[in-house]
Amino acid sequence: MAVRLPRGFRAGATRAGIKPSGRPDLALLVSGLPAAWAYAATQNRAAAPSIHRGRALYASGKPLRAVVVNAGNANCATGERGYEDDRRMAELAALRLGLSPEEVLTASTGVIGVPLPVEKIAKGLPEIGLTPFAEAFAEAILTTDTRPKVAEAEVAGARIVGLAKGSGMIHPNMATMLAFLVTDALVPQEALRAGWRRVVERTFNQVTVDGDTSTNDLALLMANGAYGEVPLKAFFEGVEAVAQELARMIARDGEGATKLMVVRVVGAATEEEARRAARAIAGSALWKSALYGNDPNWGRILAALGNSGARFDPLRVRIVLQGIPLYEGAVLPFDREEAGQAMRAEEVEVLVDLREGQGAGEAYGCDLTEDYVRINALYTT
Amino acid sequence: MAVRLPRGFRAGATRAGIKPSGRPDLALLVSGLPAAWAYAATQNRAAAPSIHRGRALYASGKPLRAVVVNAGNANCATGERGYEDDRRMAELAALRLGLSPEEVLTASTGVIGVPLPVEKIAKGLPEIGLTPFAEAFAEAILTTDTRPKVAEAEVAGARIVGLAKGSGMIHPNMATMLAFLVTDALVPQEALRAGWRRVVERTFNQVTVDGDTSTNDLALLMANGAYGEVPLKAFFEGVEAVAQELARMIARDGEGATKLMVVRVVGAATEEEARRAARAIAGSALWKSALYGNDPNWGRILAALGNSGARFDPLRVRIVLQGIPLYEGAVLPFDREEAGQAMRAEEVEVLVDLREGQGAGEAYGCDLTEDYVRINALYTT
Repeated sequence: MAVRLPRGFRAGATRAGIKPSGRPDLALLVSGLPAAWAYAATQNRAAAPSIHRGRALYASGKPLRAVVVNAGNANCATGERGYEDDRRMAELAALRLGLSPEEVLTASTGVIGVPLPVEKIAKGLPEIGLTPFAEAFAEAILTTDTRPKVAEAEVAGARIVGLAKGSGMIHPNMATMLAFLVTDALVPQEALRAGWRRVVERTFNQVTVDGDTSTNDLALLMANGAYGEVPLKAFFEGVEAVAQELARMIARDGEGATKLMVVRVVGAATEEEARRAARAIAGSALWKSALYGNDPNWGRILAALGNSGARFDPLRVRIVLQGIPLYEGAVLPFDREEAGQAMRAEEVEVLVDLREGQGAGEAYGCDLTEDYVRINALYTT
Repeated sequence: MAVRLPRGFRAGATRAGIKPSGRPDLALLVSGLPAAWAYAATQNRAAAPSIHRGRALYASGKPLRAVVVNAGNANCATGERGYEDDRRMAELAALRLGLSPEEVLTASTGVIGVPLPVEKIAKGLPEIGLTPFAEAFAEAILTTDTRPKVAEAEVAGARIVGLAKGSGMIHPNMATMLAFLVTDALVPQEALRAGWRRVVERTFNQVTVDGDTSTNDLALLMANGAYGEVPLKAFFEGVEAVAQELARMIARDGEGATKLMVVRVVGAATEEEARRAARAIAGSALWKSALYGNDPNWGRILAALGNSGARFDPLRVRIVLQGIPLYEGAVLPFDREEAGQAMRAEEVEVLVDLREGQGAGEAYGCDLTEDYVRINALYTT
């Protein structure tokens, strides 16, 4: 079941010795042709040097050829030296690939506050063998994710492949989300960037595992045109499908999670309010705990909605859990036992109708478990 | 160690049978003189009928004489009937006290979605004996708090007494914070309201247990003037001291908490940014987990700061934990063992200097423990 990258892309990885576990931790993703690209990165003010560098490259508007990623060290909060090390990593990757450094994006994930071991990266890069397959790259970018995250789609002959990592925790660190989508469709950079912003808003930005945004989050879309033009509307639908699948995988693999939560809000005054309401529910610690305990606690859903800022009338709003209507202006006479049973599932859907307008949106989360606390409290030292 | 209420106030409670445990659950707080009052209530859009009624009374500007509180039932999400029941509770209390209903504020906390048992309230009210002491009231308003919360201060002869409940959980419910401060100082209502807003912003609004805001939260300040005038500046310092003590008690008694976290942010561009930054740290699930595990994980503090929206330069910011400097633009060479030991305390202080300006502020939180998850997931059904 190897996933082939779109035409003109190659990828590979190696064990550079950055992860203490000795697992693969240095990866390259390369396009044979200069690629148009779009990019969204963390809003965190303590963003890592790689994020600052990526923003500058993005602003230049020049095409991109490659991404170099290391896992096991976020190169964040490493002072002025971190910026130097990040530049060095780009230069080394460019050297390895025969490119100029401005054609190479860097990404790092892992411990923060520890200087990046650039010498290990220098030694590792020549050892990376590039292939047309996604797996080695997808494996190497993981931290404590429990599984690799790969999704793909085909649109009118062009291919889209997405590779992501979710919320893994390495001490001392925070959950980092990295997502790389590559396609051989030919898309003008301006259209690519506008479309990507909208896709990211509706997918990756709607994932919430614990409300903390990493200093290193990024989501990249590269289009190298090796296949040719495709209808743009269908193309972005394909991109969104891949991004949404990755977003769900990331939420499902949240730390300590036993199940995926998908929250769908309809009838909001605006699409933005729908997304905000969905995020508030997916992010409520109280509701996430109830989800873990298979407790159809609609009161917590209602309270989270009330905190979201989205407009609604508590005397009209509808809440449906796993297809079972629980609330409509007041609690409905549902079977609590049956609703609890329905929550014992790999994926639980919360559907809310705010009955204010036409806005719809989704958010992706997971349950809050004792394991989340254990992973983040007891097993970090 | 009975706490005497300020001159002209009396309080009492009874077991009305609203709490399944049979503990005291219906309470009155009464002023012999019409009192100026100030009030802050939840912004939750699913706010309970008692909150809507309180806002209307507040807007009328008329003096207040009494508060009736029930615990064990939040009378929230109970449809149109909930509004009728809330009015009825006010009427019954007014009847008991020989007042008019508009002189009586209602407050409810407990399960939501279950109709308020008004007949139990009707039976219970005549049984309440009023005394000049705070304890019976403070006990009756609790839900699953582990201890009553009472604080007091004296300002130039006038007295201020505060009674609060924090984040207790009754199924299906959310954490509700109720705070009632009473004083015999004579303060014009307009000054009282302006001052109270500022105190609430700096104290109760800076408490975060799990980020969920209840549908029933309220904070009340009543001044009946039985003592007479006092210097206003000193008065509000006293009010803030009482409110801050209650805020700390509420945070310390957060569900499953083993310790209080006090976050102090200085050097912010504005006071508002300082408070926001402090709240972000106190509310970070990752940092709260590390706090539980006695892990001096400054990276999570930095990341939470980065998400707060407060302005700062990661290459300049300072982070001090329990008096131990951990970070200043880059990690400092601190003793991890010693810092971990210092975290084994009833109260842990995080001090952050953003080095942007003069803004300072505090927030109050607690650690995130496996017990939080257990209380909210496993023991609710």
